[in-house]
Amino acid sequence: MKTAIGHKVWAIPEGYIPSRSNGPSPQMTSHETACILNTNEEAVHVEITIYFADKDPVGPYKVKVEGRRTKHVRFNDLYDPQPIPTDTDYASVITADRPIVVQHTRLDSRQAENALMSTMAFPMD
Amino acid sequence: MKTAIGHKVWAIPEGYIPSRSNGPSPQMTSHETACILNTNEEAVHVEITIYFADKDPVGPYKVKVEGRRTKHVRFNDLYDPQPIPTDTDYASVITADRPIVVQHTRLDSRQAENALMSTMAFPMD
Amino acid sequence: MKTAIGHKVWAIPEGYIPSRSNGPSPQMTSHETACILNTNEEAVHVEITIYFADKDPVGPYKVKVEGRRTKHVRFNDLYDPQPIPTDTDYASVITADRPIVVQHTRLDSRQAENALMSTMAFPMD
Amino acid sequence: MKTAIGHKVWAIPEGYIPSRSNGPSPQMTSHETACILNTNEEAVHVEITIYFADKDPVGPYKVKVEGRRTKHVRFNDLYDPQPIPTDTDYASVITADRPIVVQHTRLDSRQAENALMSTMAFPMD
Repeated sequence: MKTAIGHKVWAIPEGYIPSRSNGPSPQMTSHETACILNTNEEAVHVEITIYFADKDPVGPYKVKVEGRRTKHVRFNDLYDPQPIPTDTDYASVITADRPIVVQHTRLDSRQAENALMSTMAFPMD
Repeated sequence: MKTAIGHKVWAIPEGYIPSRSNGPSPQMTSHETACILNTNEEAVHVEITIYFADKDPVGPYKVKVEGRRTKHVRFNDLYDPQPIPTDTDYASVITADRPIVVQHTRLDSRQAENALMSTMAFPMD
Repeated sequence: MKTAIGHKVWAIPEGYIPSRSNGPSPQMTSHETACILNTNEEAVHVEITIYFADKDPVGPYKVKVEGRRTKHVRFNDLYDPQPIPTDTDYASVITADRPIVVQHTRLDSRQAENALMSTMAFPMD
Repeated sequence: MKTAIGHKVWAIPEGYIPSRSNGPSPQMTSHETACILNTNEEAVHVEITIYFADKDPVGPYKVKVEGRRTKHVRFNDLYDPQPIPTDTDYASVITADRPIVVQHTRLDSRQAENALMSTMAFPMD
């Protein structure tokens, strides 16, 4: 890959971190992930803003992804400026200073058997 | 975010609300959701039209999403002009007076363990 | 909706109909579906071509979707020119004489609890 | 189909092969798949590069897909230049010398009941 691929602004309207889980932690803990692919030679500085149903957006949460690397960011693990509440509808906008590609995945293990869903985030810029 | 992102017309060809559920309500009730993200400063007025296999479309169902907010609209909860029948194939077209982003999710708890699916709606305008 | 939305050619690289199922038929029968939304006033004539790993494509399978209707086509139910074999990798290309939108869904009930997946088909024309 | 459809570069930011499985092999073995559709008359030569969180990319893994065929490539089965480690976050970029369409699917059978997810890969070129 000689050219970096992707976009600098991505949106994920669906967001919900279940508060309950079944199975060994951390693999089977209910979680939401933004999988970020950085094909650039250089690191990218990523900022995530969280939107809610009934209060102002929170953020930016800052994440750095080194050049030619992927980072699978668990929303559960974001804590600065504040943790994302569980059992709460949210959405996210992800911006970067170089092109990236973003995919959204949830593992829901509230019941004994886990469920999965995934989709590309929506690119805009 | 200084600029709003998204499109004003979105389509979701898949639609089906299972009539049966397992687990505590409302979280584990079988449902379909259109997750709407409004990054505009201003509120958006959203209209949802439901298409069926064998009768004329029904709608519009009207939803308002305040500025810089997300709303996860359960199709199960739409009742005006009429509830969406369960166990029935349908599709939806979602229009807004400002750009939004829409993601489609289903939780199916007809069997003891829930299943999930999600995809971005298809943008057109 | 005054204007029809969508594309005339769609691709779904993933295809696989599990031969086994658990649960009541037909709802919980393992199946793959192409959900077609026709927002045109007029009917659309849809042709589905099935691609395989190791033999020539088969088709077209012909489907008609009336104006302002959705049809959720189960690949399991296609039989002319020939049924699609189960437990076999395939892919599909869906063409129409007017713009449509296509979403792909699988329900897999080979094990006691069903699993779901869904994504928009890929538009090209 | 007289014209080939698709793109020559695709990205899949999400990648993770669970090391554990339940159920009969190979159908129910936990796996990740890149479903490739080649509508060209001619064969396509595909190269897959794997990106990691903490080390340099590995590849290319080379795959040939004959004309008018689909190939559902299990990442589990890629071994040259080296197998992809299980229980490890990765991402992939898929390039081809002619246009193709790529869809990403995971079957996770770590728990007794399998979970599924699928999305189109992200096209770039």
